[in-house]
Amino acid sequence: MRYALYYWPSIQGRGEFVRLALEDAGADYIDVARRARGMQAMERLLESPSIKRAPFAPPFLRAGELLIAQTANILFYLGPRLGLAPKAEPGRLWLHQLQLTIADWLVEVHDTHHPIGSGLYYEDQRPEAKRRAADFRSERLPKFLQYFEKMESRSFSYIDLSLFQMIEGLRYAFPRTMSRLEKNVPRLVELHERVAERPRLGRYLRSKRRIAFNQQGIFRRYPELDAA
Amino acid sequence: MRYALYYWPSIQGRGEFVRLALEDAGADYIDVARRARGMQAMERLLESPSIKRAPFAPPFLRAGELLIAQTANILFYLGPRLGLAPKAEPGRLWLHQLQLTIADWLVEVHDTHHPIGSGLYYEDQRPEAKRRAADFRSERLPKFLQYFEKMESRSFSYIDLSLFQMIEGLRYAFPRTMSRLEKNVPRLVELHERVAERPRLGRYLRSKRRIAFNQQGIFRRYPELDAA
Repeated sequence: MRYALYYWPSIQGRGEFVRLALEDAGADYIDVARRARGMQAMERLLESPSIKRAPFAPPFLRAGELLIAQTANILFYLGPRLGLAPKAEPGRLWLHQLQLTIADWLVEVHDTHHPIGSGLYYEDQRPEAKRRAADFRSERLPKFLQYFEKMESRSFSYIDLSLFQMIEGLRYAFPRTMSRLEKNVPRLVELHERVAERPRLGRYLRSKRRIAFNQQGIFRRYPELDAA
Repeated sequence: MRYALYYWPSIQGRGEFVRLALEDAGADYIDVARRARGMQAMERLLESPSIKRAPFAPPFLRAGELLIAQTANILFYLGPRLGLAPKAEPGRLWLHQLQLTIADWLVEVHDTHHPIGSGLYYEDQRPEAKRRAADFRSERLPKFLQYFEKMESRSFSYIDLSLFQMIEGLRYAFPRTMSRLEKNVPRLVELHERVAERPRLGRYLRSKRRIAFNQQGIFRRYPELDAA
């Protein structure tokens, strides 16, 4: 099956969690909005009154007749089909539970630079961002890291890819904080290295298909939001 | 099967979305933390090193051998078993996508009074809360309401119960804003009425099992956060 992923073409964002799974599995897919006239196709889909089951926002995935939105829902669907999750329900629900916890974590990363409104500029919420980022660095980030550090070890899945992306993004956004916290989470650091060395994924990360981190994405580097 | 729900005993919070499904279906369940020594049982479960697949936070559900966390994941599991979702994958994924969008919406409701840190008091983030709530009322709330207003009409499911709870909570937290916005979403208002009239659910809502809204929950009434 050829999958069609719809996501903003200039950021990693939430779409990247789906891209990593498709790339690691060597799946046949197109990244619609990065092709000629792809953005119009995506916007048409979001606004069309004839779409019966419209997504609220990107990313969404076309898989044959299905149109699936919400990052964790897409990965739940793709997991067993791409060999990145078990087929039996208990294992699938457990991985999905972890992915939903990663989704919660990601919202908190985003809100460090947008605590007041996602439609406002960062520059219009800087004092609030500084307070929120301090709370994130001291309270929430260590809690999430510790939770995933202690997580049951098991066979490779899309969760490893998502945790790789979290570590990668957190290192970009909070380099000083992460260099301090990483010594407490050696298993996560080792997991990150192991994932980066996977042949297909490594090729993807070095390719032009991998968009660089930038100041429009979820992970942003504002030095004033990192530790002193 | 007798289900065991674990959630904070003094608020509706996220657990209420699960309670509504269990109650509407007339399921056999216990609300663990509301029983004698139940809080200790819940905390033991959260902290026990012997639990292989520990939740990050309540709510979680014990269903036989399974321990399932994340509200939307619990409803995904319960849906077809309680007659509140179809059994076939396309319909299940679609309802789950909607529930995950409701979960995103709920985080934004919570963050109107806690934009800086969930571990801090409201009183320590009042100016920021005022700004965030204004953005929520003018930008985000109308967008979510319109999305669900246009949603495909279909057979009754746990999504209707969750939307009932959203309307109920928003009316409690933002009475002035809602009285203005509701005229634009007649289908949601009608859905709310229809759900409240369901016999089993109505009995639950009038019972002592239904915890009242209060200032520790997700939906809180701070008049300064509502429209003028």
